[in-house]
Amino acid sequence: MSRDNFDQQLDRLTGVLAVMSRDAGVAIRGASTALLEVDRGAAELVVAGDAVLDLRRAEVEAMIPEVLIRHQPVAYDLRLVVCALRIASALERMGDLAVHIAKIALMRHPVGVVPEPALPVITGMADAAARIADKTAIVLATRDRLDAMQLGLDDDEVDAAQERLLSMLVSGWPYGVESAIDLALLGRYYERYADNAVNVARQVVFLVTGTIRL
Amino acid sequence: MSRDNFDQQLDRLTGVLAVMSRDAGVAIRGASTALLEVDRGAAELVVAGDAVLDLRRAEVEAMIPEVLIRHQPVAYDLRLVVCALRIASALERMGDLAVHIAKIALMRHPVGVVPEPALPVITGMADAAARIADKTAIVLATRDRLDAMQLGLDDDEVDAAQERLLSMLVSGWPYGVESAIDLALLGRYYERYADNAVNVARQVVFLVTGTIRL
Repeated sequence: MSRDNFDQQLDRLTGVLAVMSRDAGVAIRGASTALLEVDRGAAELVVAGDAVLDLRRAEVEAMIPEVLIRHQPVAYDLRLVVCALRIASALERMGDLAVHIAKIALMRHPVGVVPEPALPVITGMADAAARIADKTAIVLATRDRLDAMQLGLDDDEVDAAQERLLSMLVSGWPYGVESAIDLALLGRYYERYADNAVNVARQVVFLVTGTIRL
Repeated sequence: MSRDNFDQQLDRLTGVLAVMSRDAGVAIRGASTALLEVDRGAAELVVAGDAVLDLRRAEVEAMIPEVLIRHQPVAYDLRLVVCALRIASALERMGDLAVHIAKIALMRHPVGVVPEPALPVITGMADAAARIADKTAIVLATRDRLDAMQLGLDDDEVDAAQERLLSMLVSGWPYGVESAIDLALLGRYYERYADNAVNVARQVVFLVTGTIRL
């Protein structure tokens, strides 16, 4: 098969990953809307939409062996197909975590999950996660190491927010234990979403440089 | 390269996965000991030992392209190398979750994390997780579909225990919000550990049958 055909397959592979990163961003925005605006429809859309991310991951995994075996890529091309597997897995997981957030909103609907005192910190996590999703898509498109490092800063912001949230919950939270557990799990889900986005960026850095560091 | 050499590489691959599943089992047992016996040394061993699982996963990932490219496996052999990537990833994640459990024990040490009323349910989760780890190793060795399905039953047990734990925490938990959050997260970590073990079993079923179902 010609180099052209190989490039076409790589383009298709990276194209699917780009779509997945966009969908993972749509999912976390929808989940945050469901959570912060007590929007049942938004939550149901996130839950229903997750199947598409699962299918796209399977599509990526189905492409890899053929690409490897038919084209026997080396160096950068080889790293690209191997990284694509890990990236697809991380993006699918990001969708799952958005679903976890949406399901907490659904479980409590029509009651809101985020009491007023927790709104700033949860909103901050939601905004940072949405930014991280956008940057993940950018990193996949540019494969720029600096763009990848940018992601780490937003991830630190999410981790710090999770710390603030937990200390708020344990210093006399007046909304009860169930509310505190919901919020602790929500913080955890945003944190894991950001961690998986950082993994995507890490794979891109590995792809470009051949070494894992961020 | 001869078929013999290919088989040797597959044996090495499955050998590394077997060792990883054993290490993931050691990790969750150590984490449960740290948690239930307030054993700081056990917790530190789990945290320190996790790097080995990370390295073995990298070892598996490094082997895959060579195996695919040099031997161009088809059908079962091809599925084996593709599944190996997902299995290694799930086993590494199981180690990470054991570390999360150990770190909660370390964070509260020398204070115990599990008050007496929660001991039965957490002990039940710990025992089920340890059984699941053993069965994961067995499934990897036998590649028996019935063994794989067995795992699903223990996973259901962990999910049910998590439900019991959460309803206990929200119905007048007298040990405070921090304790409730610790326990909710612990339940979540055991649940995710079991989920990842089920993923390993699912990959083995896919490997044997060519279809994902458990």
